[in-house]
Parts: sequence; structure tokens; C-alpha cells
Amino acid sequence: MRTDLEFARFIDATLLKPEATEEQMREHLEIAKKYHFKTVAIGCSWIPMAKEILAGSDVGIDAPIGFANGYNTTEAKVFETIDAFAKGATEADILLNIGMLRSGRYAEVEEELVRFKAACGNHISKVIFETYYLTDEQIREAVRIAKRAGLDFVKTSTGFAKGGATIEHVKLMLDEAGDSIQVKASGGIRSREIADTFLDMGVTRLGASNPQNLLINK
Amino acid sequence: MRTDLEFARFIDATLLKPEATEEQMREHLEIAKKYHFKTVAIGCSWIPMAKEILAGSDVGIDAPIGFANGYNTTEAKVFETIDAFAKGATEADILLNIGMLRSGRYAEVEEELVRFKAACGNHISKVIFETYYLTDEQIREAVRIAKRAGLDFVKTSTGFAKGGATIEHVKLMLDEAGDSIQVKASGGIRSREIADTFLDMGVTRLGASNPQNLLINK
Repeated sequence: MRTDLEFARFIDATLLKPEATEEQMREHLEIAKKYHFKTVAIGCSWIPMAKEILAGSDVGIDAPIGFANGYNTTEAKVFETIDAFAKGATEADILLNIGMLRSGRYAEVEEELVRFKAACGNHISKVIFETYYLTDEQIREAVRIAKRAGLDFVKTSTGFAKGGATIEHVKLMLDEAGDSIQVKASGGIRSREIADTFLDMGVTRLGASNPQNLLINK
Repeated sequence: MRTDLEFARFIDATLLKPEATEEQMREHLEIAKKYHFKTVAIGCSWIPMAKEILAGSDVGIDAPIGFANGYNTTEAKVFETIDAFAKGATEADILLNIGMLRSGRYAEVEEELVRFKAACGNHISKVIFETYYLTDEQIREAVRIAKRAGLDFVKTSTGFAKGGATIEHVKLMLDEAGDSIQVKASGGIRSREIADTFLDMGVTRLGASNPQNLLINK
């Protein structure tokens, strides 16, 4: 049984609604500090404020890149990554180019992730698949690409598609990942039970909105 | 009564689904050429292909910037704009920072649009409000900001919020716009009747997915 604090260190606390206000963002940051979540995943324009509020805490800042459609140019995604780290991000989650992957244009997907990894330097790098739109084989291929690109994590979902993380997709990703890349599950994780199930399977990071609701002792 | 060709010249034909494949994109571009839509609005990574396919036609390329959440940094949005024009875009639609606007941080919203306008140069510049999340007064304020920034168009919606263009919001925008900025309606425009209604009101550009379905003679 994980304690709440142990649990919290697996959590990227996400507030990625386009309409979120400064007040909601401040509240989100205070909650993350209080419960020691691993990071906050927030729109990049909020990073400077987050850096100030989280200074001295154990909460990192997770930047969404090419979010949440993924069809930006590689150049724009790379710039956004460098800009996010310059402003105070500590990790970055890039959404891969879903349409290119679905069209079998794997070389371009890989080239983008290689350039993303370079822009991340020693910071933790994650790639979002948006598994809802992919076949099992496309998911496996994406894991292989991410491994070759040297990323730290593959991740299921943005939370913006009609479906999020499923047991079946996570199993597939863990299987293909082996020991050389970690798996983050995200999208629709709204109970401690499902969150613990993913962690027990071998997932090492979870993305969740309002993760304080997943704690035993609130 | 507008002919289909007259109608088509008001239309930004949009294909902005994150999962759209190369095949769907090629079909979209061919349809736009066939019916002479004003532009295609497509993810920026598809612009080089579109430029090739649309060469010599009367169809422009409309680039979505900071799409579709709007909370990217100003620097990333400006870079994405410059990059899109370098790759072949002819117009750009930026999503304003919804959360900042809703928080009353108008100066930052304006500063971003001023820098966006500079990045657009002589190309047509539009700003998306995502009116679904805004109050009437926030919509009016956003029109005033866009006018001061010297943009060409204010635009209602991305198509990704729960609601798109409404008669009421468009009326408000036209009223505040006066003669100094144009209005584009977008999001949920799925009949010729509603499209013509917007045009009759004074709207001068429409965004629509599958706009060929709005033509009288298909």
C-alpha cells in the first residue's frame, strides 16, 4: 500500500483547460505544493508564475509541447521546448504528429523526436501518443521510435481526445517499452483504484486533473 | 443570392482534426482547389505539402497559431507565425490567451497581438476569441484590443470548444468592430442557411469543415 506522499511523487498534476484563469492556476499551484505532487502540467504562458510560486518546493513544472493537436511543425515544437525550459520548465511532454504517424511517415515522426530530445538536454522528456487514434501496431511502432530517440517516457493521452489511458494500451506500451523507456498513463484517471492499478502494472508516472481527489487522506 | 463561387471566396476550408492523415489532407486540398475556397486552414506541418498541391491555384493557406488552447507563450506563438509564413502560409489565425483575458490581463493579451501582427507583416491576420468561454464584455474588450493591435479580423471559435459561432456573439463583434476590423465566424457552421445569415449580417469570412456540403450545386 502506497502512502499518499509516495503516491503523490508519481503524479503530474494537470491544469490544461484553455479557459483556466489566473485564480484557478494559483489554487492549482498551491494544492500541488501542499500535497507534493511531482510536477504541475500547465500551459507554458503560466510557467513564469509557477516558477515563482513553486520556488523552493519539490514540485517540478511540466511543459506541454505542440499541445493538444500535434500537427505543428517540428521547428515550432523545438522552439517551444527551448522556450519552456528557458522560462522555468523542468520536464516537457511533446505530442507526436498523430497524422504523420497514422500515414506511416515514421521517419519524420522520429526525426522530430530526436530534435525534441536534443532540445530537452538533461531534462526529462516524454512523448504523448494519443493512443485513442492509433492501432496497436502504431502504438508499438511509436514506442520503438521513442526508444530510438532516447526519450525518458512514452505517454498515452492528452486528455483532449474522446478516450484516455486504457489498461489494454498501457499493457501494450509497457510490453514494447521493456526496461529502456518508462510509461506515463494519463487521461481519465479519476479513481485511486485505477491509478494504483497502473502503478502496479509498472507505470512510473501518472497525469491527472485534480489529483488531490485521488489521495486517501485529503 | 450568392453563386457558389461567390460564396466559396468567403470560406476558409478547415481540416484541423489532430488525427487527419495524409490521404485525408490530400483530398481536402483537391476539394478546395475544385471549388475555389478562399483558403485551407490546416495544421502547420501540412503546409509544405499544401503549398505544392495548391501552387497556381486561387486557394490560400491559413495557419492556426497557438491552436487550439491558446496558453502558449507569446514567444512560441510569434515563432510559429514566422515559421508558418516561411513555409508557405498566406494568412494566420492566432488563438488569444483565453485564461489571461478572463483574468483581466488585457495588457498582456494586447502585447501578444501586437507582436503577432508584426510577425504577419502584410499577410492577413486574424485573432480567435473562443467566445464560448467569454462574457459579452470580454468579447467587446477583445475586439477593442484587436483593433488597437491593427489586426485584419476577429474570429469567434476554434471548433474545439463545446460551442461555436452564435448569432448573438457575432452581432456583438460586428457592433464593436465597426468599419475598422472584419469579422470571421467559425465553429459549427453546417448549413448554407446559417452561413448566408452570417454573411448577410456583415461577416466577411467563414470557417467551415467540409464546406463543399454548403454549396448549392455540388
